Amino acid sequence: MLYVIGLGPGGKEEITPKAMEALATCDIIAGYTIYIDLIRPYFPEKEFLTTPMKQEVKRCTLAIETALTGKTVAMVCSGDAGVYGMAGLIFELAQSYPNPPTIKVIGGITAACSGAAVLGAPLMHDFAVISLSDLLTPWKQIEARLRCAAQGDFVICLYNPASKKRQDYLQKACDILLESKTADTVCGWVKNIGREGETAEILSLGELRNASVDMFTTVYIGNSKTKDINGFLVTPRGYPIP
Amino acid sequence: MLYVIGLGPGGKEEITPKAMEALATCDIIAGYTIYIDLIRPYFPEKEFLTTPMKQEVKRCTLAIETALTGKTVAMVCSGDAGVYGMAGLIFELAQSYPNPPTIKVIGGITAACSGAAVLGAPLMHDFAVISLSDLLTPWKQIEARLRCAAQGDFVICLYNPASKKRQDYLQKACDILLESKTADTVCGWVKNIGREGETAEILSLGELRNASVDMFTTVYIGNSKTKDINGFLVTPRGYPIP
Repeated sequence: MLYVIGLGPGGKEEITPKAMEALATCDIIAGYTIYIDLIRPYFPEKEFLTTPMKQEVKRCTLAIETALTGKTVAMVCSGDAGVYGMAGLIFELAQSYPNPPTIKVIGGITAACSGAAVLGAPLMHDFAVISLSDLLTPWKQIEARLRCAAQGDFVICLYNPASKKRQDYLQKACDILLESKTADTVCGWVKNIGREGETAEILSLGELRNASVDMFTTVYIGNSKTKDINGFLVTPRGYPIP
Repeated sequence: MLYVIGLGPGGKEEITPKAMEALATCDIIAGYTIYIDLIRPYFPEKEFLTTPMKQEVKRCTLAIETALTGKTVAMVCSGDAGVYGMAGLIFELAQSYPNPPTIKVIGGITAACSGAAVLGAPLMHDFAVISLSDLLTPWKQIEARLRCAAQGDFVICLYNPASKKRQDYLQKACDILLESKTADTVCGWVKNIGREGETAEILSLGELRNASVDMFTTVYIGNSKTKDINGFLVTPRGYPIP
């Protein structure tokens, strides 16, 4: 049995009982070192299997092969395991085994939603989620998606807006959005959602272009109707306000 | 104090401890009748304030005015309160009061994520979330967003794909997507996610056009790489598979 489990933003109080119960039944909990460290204290008796970043294929293969020995294994991810997490890779790798283990995905709150709650209510209307990481996706395709999302007047939520090697990606993305959106479009970002050092800011698209973000930041670009209401980022759903 | 709380897909085991703790501190819990019925059994001693569907402005106004009397109030929504929920309307309405109550949004697992977990891992890459309800959004804008999302090769997740009065909206949406996507694009739907009567199906875009869906169904349209892997709907993230 192989569970793929989303832990939500980080704190124990945002892990669902369903996820905690599945973790409790496991013999082995696998994952990226940082996420394992979040839950290790709650399960001191468990066996843990950690691999560093950029070893996702190795990590998932290990989890599958351990499950095939008859153990109950959990692969944990931050946020939701099905949004830029390990769920897809587990399914892809498992199909090459003649008798793949039973796989069950248990959802968590993804950063788009947990960050939105910090800022107010930016995702109240149709939205697009785009990762700016070009490790696995050609940058040209990311650019095309940014243009389509802006053209459709979607609220846009950006994951992985920067890393050490990609310091200027958010700036490049903003320049593309500025082709069709105005510089005063209301935007926001949240860093370290639900963890120590949580910070957030509401700012214009023109200002966002020069914002300092990192790989733990989630970025929101409003649609044409998104507003700053008393310090909260809010996209109207369209209800007639009396 | 006014909390806006997402309950996730439905069952108690997917409500976060953070949401349960906030509910426990409340004097009054407000919401749409169906969602209130989900949590009433856990808080038999609380006062509840329910209004039927399509009375969202009245419901949120009542919650705000009750909070202004000094009570701690929770407005509950299914899924995440910030995704087509009540969070935005609460902020919009509260601003017209001279001293609005403190508002805090507590996230939940939105249907896009909980439904994805049932189907496999369809949202592993960039995706767009679109509601097909034209009660508050002009249909022309919904059409434009469907075209943009298809053009950007986003995975598309549809909320509110039908209602009693909008039986043919999914068909109309599929016809728009079929302008640029092939009929064999891999799709899926989930009905009654996490509740009694949960059902799901993986099917082609051509078949989806004639699928029977209702207002409790969430629909997924794959991108050009989405696959059916042993009965699971999976969008590859792009990892090189050995």
